[in-house]
Amino acid sequence: MNVTSSPDSKAAVPRFPAELIDSTPFLLKRLGFAVKEQAMEAYERFGLNPTHHAVLAVLDEGTRETQGAIADALGYDRGQLVGLLDELEERALVERRRDPSDRRRQHVQLTPAGRRTLTRLRAVAQELENSFLAALSAEERAGLHTTLRRLAEQHLPRCAVGSPNAR
Amino acid sequence: MNVTSSPDSKAAVPRFPAELIDSTPFLLKRLGFAVKEQAMEAYERFGLNPTHHAVLAVLDEGTRETQGAIADALGYDRGQLVGLLDELEERALVERRRDPSDRRRQHVQLTPAGRRTLTRLRAVAQELENSFLAALSAEERAGLHTTLRRLAEQHLPRCAVGSPNAR
Repeated sequence: MNVTSSPDSKAAVPRFPAELIDSTPFLLKRLGFAVKEQAMEAYERFGLNPTHHAVLAVLDEGTRETQGAIADALGYDRGQLVGLLDELEERALVERRRDPSDRRRQHVQLTPAGRRTLTRLRAVAQELENSFLAALSAEERAGLHTTLRRLAEQHLPRCAVGSPNAR
Repeated sequence: MNVTSSPDSKAAVPRFPAELIDSTPFLLKRLGFAVKEQAMEAYERFGLNPTHHAVLAVLDEGTRETQGAIADALGYDRGQLVGLLDELEERALVERRRDPSDRRRQHVQLTPAGRRTLTRLRAVAQELENSFLAALSAEERAGLHTTLRRLAEQHLPRCAVGSPNAR
């Protein structure tokens, strides 16, 4: 039971125990962390991160532009969203305006620069997807997406069947 | 572009933007978070969490019993592992002994209670897997696992091909 100190012994190779590698939830969790890290890195060159992309994507759909509706769409708390909108506004990617009929309410809109940045971020997301899934054929990728969508419908309320974007 | 205040309008349903739902990395990331949360809850009734299970699983394989080797196997930093081992030792699930030939080195072993707990945690993990994947057929589950293993071989060094547990 002692660990051998030989550097080329099997015991010296850092690896997960077999029962974890055999566990689909474990792989999902660890791959989820890995893809998040890769995404953070990929967005960094724009000084942004995937949460900024998510906010811009909500705004681009054009149906939700109050701070509350944007936060609800993404499951972010209000404070987190306010911080993200501050960062996007500093970069002139969004603008906030008071609702003339309700001064407590702010409307948020993409600026033209925000639209251009969103286009670039979509390209970053696509590159990330291509490189993350590089080991899979097109058919395997489609199969994986279908399976994850089924799981998402069950476990992620914002992907549930009946929600307008759940196809 | 204004948000309607009608509660049954489509715009009022909190949902992710379509481009995020269409993104496999996004679904992987969010499902990874969801399964982690469910796992934390499932282990809580034992006063433990999935990282304790991971440590017990490494010890059960019997090839790595120094603190350094256990940390390496799981990708935990040493401080994190020491905390986990303290918690496991308090519950008498593991015991640490100084190596007589190298007093700076500690060997860690499962106790009989640790083995019994590991058996229970395996059942918890299996239940979690069954409920998380409940929407999928046995064939779809197997396909998902195979696909995630392929991705893990690329993105998780501790699952890489050539590592003894990567089958």
